[in-house]
Amino acid sequence: MEVGPVQDKIQLSHGAGGTVMNDLIKSVIIAGIGRRRVAGGAGLDEFDDGATIPVDGREIVVSSDAHIVDPIFFPGGDIGKLSVCGAINDLAMMGAEPVALTDTIVVEEGFLVDDLKKIVASMNAAIESVGMALVHGDLKVMPKGKLDRIVISTAGIGFLRGRKPILDSGLRAGDKIIVTGPVGDHGIAIASVREGISFRTSLISDVAPLWGLMEAAMGAGEVTAAKDPTRGGVAMALNEMAEMSGVSIWLREEEIPVRDEVMGACEMLGMDPLELTCEGRAVLGVRGGAKSILNAIKGTPEGKGARIIGEVKAEREGYVIMETSVGGKRVVGPPLGEPTPRIC
Amino acid sequence: MEVGPVQDKIQLSHGAGGTVMNDLIKSVIIAGIGRRRVAGGAGLDEFDDGATIPVDGREIVVSSDAHIVDPIFFPGGDIGKLSVCGAINDLAMMGAEPVALTDTIVVEEGFLVDDLKKIVASMNAAIESVGMALVHGDLKVMPKGKLDRIVISTAGIGFLRGRKPILDSGLRAGDKIIVTGPVGDHGIAIASVREGISFRTSLISDVAPLWGLMEAAMGAGEVTAAKDPTRGGVAMALNEMAEMSGVSIWLREEEIPVRDEVMGACEMLGMDPLELTCEGRAVLGVRGGAKSILNAIKGTPEGKGARIIGEVKAEREGYVIMETSVGGKRVVGPPLGEPTPRIC
Repeated sequence: MEVGPVQDKIQLSHGAGGTVMNDLIKSVIIAGIGRRRVAGGAGLDEFDDGATIPVDGREIVVSSDAHIVDPIFFPGGDIGKLSVCGAINDLAMMGAEPVALTDTIVVEEGFLVDDLKKIVASMNAAIESVGMALVHGDLKVMPKGKLDRIVISTAGIGFLRGRKPILDSGLRAGDKIIVTGPVGDHGIAIASVREGISFRTSLISDVAPLWGLMEAAMGAGEVTAAKDPTRGGVAMALNEMAEMSGVSIWLREEEIPVRDEVMGACEMLGMDPLELTCEGRAVLGVRGGAKSILNAIKGTPEGKGARIIGEVKAEREGYVIMETSVGGKRVVGPPLGEPTPRIC
Repeated sequence: MEVGPVQDKIQLSHGAGGTVMNDLIKSVIIAGIGRRRVAGGAGLDEFDDGATIPVDGREIVVSSDAHIVDPIFFPGGDIGKLSVCGAINDLAMMGAEPVALTDTIVVEEGFLVDDLKKIVASMNAAIESVGMALVHGDLKVMPKGKLDRIVISTAGIGFLRGRKPILDSGLRAGDKIIVTGPVGDHGIAIASVREGISFRTSLISDVAPLWGLMEAAMGAGEVTAAKDPTRGGVAMALNEMAEMSGVSIWLREEEIPVRDEVMGACEMLGMDPLELTCEGRAVLGVRGGAKSILNAIKGTPEGKGARIIGEVKAEREGYVIMETSVGGKRVVGPPLGEPTPRIC
């Protein structure tokens, strides 16, 4: 993985969701675009899961994602499920009910129509699970050899459940941090079936829609910040929250749920579970009654493995600090990026 | 170009914007997705430039496009300008002021960061021209050789200027049809610089944002239907309008503006100018005072070459009929698709 300032050519690390990517986005996109928010809304500068647009005194939420996962069919899901859950989860992390979806499908000449039907069926199942609608789309075909099979982009439109969006900047000292289930399943499930690094595992991706879980959490108490730890994993999500909120986050290593299989694979491959992509997990900041919010989350199918993993302090602004199982402390820095390319 | 029912593998024609593409979309996407509209709004079934979502008694408009144009820098524009104008024009054709944009950029490892900066600068110029904002985005990187340089998808969000969206189904007998400038410039400009079919021309793409033009037209009278004739060209746009509205459209060949260079290239390459992609033109149905709407359009930079090219009748429902220069009549059928792959 490339390290340091933005190179003159795009590297894989520029798409890996970590600091290398954020540096490129800041220096090329943010620096190049003048209008980055609709007046009164949250926009590009927030680096949040979505943006908000004021409409007649309320705010609607929009999010966007491109999906290039390889393989396109993987244990626990496929690129269709991933692309719809990506939109649902971005909206949910902003505290918005998913209402509508647009998609663009770019496909390689020669792609099997039956595979496209399977992908559309997966998209439909995820759409149905939250009652949103696919209202618009586009389809383009690239000549054979010009694209590796298929890329799907989605944009989600949601309506805020509360009065204000849940932003990464919402953490305050005293808030508790919840993770909604074991981390890294998606990252290892994809790595396990990738050419060159195949190994045996019964692990499946965690990819899942999280609106029901968020609805339960918001119904049980105050959610002050929320993020789905996709590329860059829990480490990146928490670092962005700490930075945007101007606080520190203190984790207890022994509370962070990681499956044995994920831990074993990480040891074998030299990966950190906290830097692996999840596609069906959320990290939440919650205020007051953390236990009742935790219990509400544990009552949802996607939240059975939820845990309180840490808390927020005012000191050491911007840092994420782990209290290790052996009693030490270490800084969990923002990763350069997820180590597996085309993870989502 | 493949003809007939949907094949078992994706063909280039499946992305060409004509009847072959629409057949695939109907049999795979429409048939596979259960929820295709938000209650009270216009959705996927309309095959329109955008969809609408009711929000507290008003409707917002959303549109989506993927852009795979080759070459990515072409006479008159680049993939950045194209991707933003695509969103602006889709919203404008629905009668909506462009307010916000999301984008996803998928780029090949090794792509020059300087080229990405140029593309972002083009995007920004188009965004600034209508005062919208780029509020959210995503960036992904494909390994070298897995994608031919860059694909950009955009979603646009707009606010209706009038009370109701302008839909393709809005034509009624007696409406006049306006085209806002010479047709086919984009199609021939791209074809002229494509490997294998290069020829000399000073032609540049018509790619341009059309919100100012639509604003002028709507301010001068009643616009009953509007479409930007992208893939499949004017022929496809008018056939879709005629079908959705349950009317016929009668064109006068001598009134349709086509540049000599486009006509010459079409004769050389065996193409029909009516089937070529435009990226800065609109075909409009207008009711009452067509001349004053025409004059308002001609007063905008993008509408100087506008003409009234035909009218709407109730008979022969669904047909587009051309009264030729030599006094005959011919049916202008829906094309299979734009003949140049990766045109937009």
